[in-house]
Amino acid sequence: MYTLYYAPGTCALATHIALEEAGAPYRAERLDFGAGQQRSPDYLKVNPKGRVPALVTEQGVLTETPALLAFVAQAFPAARLAPLNDPFAFARVQEINSYLCSTVHVAHAHKMRGTRWTDDAAAIEAMKRKVPETMGACFDLIEAEMIRGPWVMGEAYTICDPYLYTIARWLEGDSVDVARFPKVQAHMARMEARPAVAKVLATQG
Amino acid sequence: MYTLYYAPGTCALATHIALEEAGAPYRAERLDFGAGQQRSPDYLKVNPKGRVPALVTEQGVLTETPALLAFVAQAFPAARLAPLNDPFAFARVQEINSYLCSTVHVAHAHKMRGTRWTDDAAAIEAMKRKVPETMGACFDLIEAEMIRGPWVMGEAYTICDPYLYTIARWLEGDSVDVARFPKVQAHMARMEARPAVAKVLATQG
Repeated sequence: MYTLYYAPGTCALATHIALEEAGAPYRAERLDFGAGQQRSPDYLKVNPKGRVPALVTEQGVLTETPALLAFVAQAFPAARLAPLNDPFAFARVQEINSYLCSTVHVAHAHKMRGTRWTDDAAAIEAMKRKVPETMGACFDLIEAEMIRGPWVMGEAYTICDPYLYTIARWLEGDSVDVARFPKVQAHMARMEARPAVAKVLATQG
Repeated sequence: MYTLYYAPGTCALATHIALEEAGAPYRAERLDFGAGQQRSPDYLKVNPKGRVPALVTEQGVLTETPALLAFVAQAFPAARLAPLNDPFAFARVQEINSYLCSTVHVAHAHKMRGTRWTDDAAAIEAMKRKVPETMGACFDLIEAEMIRGPWVMGEAYTICDPYLYTIARWLEGDSVDVARFPKVQAHMARMEARPAVAKVLATQG
């Protein structure tokens, strides 16, 4: 039995959906970010980074969304969530997830987490102002180059799909109109029609 | 035969070392970042992101360091660059590489690439000022939690090692004294004693 630590609105949603799609035995443990629970001494023992997601397994704790998504795919191969036996195809999946993690998530984080990179209040405001532009540029590339359709990798649903969906949900709050990206918008609707996604969204509330 | 596009001083060094360690058939193609070659029409056809590394394979182009490192490990299993058949152990490797990519590299990028996140000159200067603190905090965590020794993952040399080495080389330029991190410093020396690393450093010049 795994324990997934998450908070609503965070990238932990991607791993939560993947666990559900895989039929993995898990329970989801919500952290209250408003109360700073991710910085509590108890949680820092689980994840010294003070962030989510963190997945407690019998072998130890795992963090970082791209690592967790590939782990779920590899640990539950029957769910066919990644092309595990084709190094090039698996690298394509990881390329998307790495881009989402290191470029798109980071662009978004400059809206609410600017204190990670500066202590200057005016600079934090300046960063916030560029978020619609940077997130828009990321999704221009995603729309043009990365979504094959109907799923990110084409006919096969993979661990790229819950991750893209999770980050696409941030566009509206980042003042980017998702209607600019028809493939992304159709992908979101397709995701929300999946029972696993509906169940996880109901749990996260 | 692969073609690796790189520029000196970039994270492409990690993939370059991994290819060399794996005994992969490749040639290394240098881009002149000073002349903006990464933004040339020809290179944008290779990698629309306008960055390095990019690895041209017979099946297509791959980008993103964590994806490339796992690809090299999987495509050349005899080199034993990752625990390929153990989902948990492989996830540990990927967890480190994902942290290096999305947190440590990003912290470093706020020194020279601030225009990615703001157009405000004062904000860019404010970001630069915090880089020694953020890079120092990342390496505090790496030193305390991530290097098992002698290699990142313990006795086995893996794809985490060239990636950590590549980023640790940026510390001095980021005004962080690597002597604060004895394990990291010893790891750098151990890396530089490897023939594959020496060969790649000589090539990149």
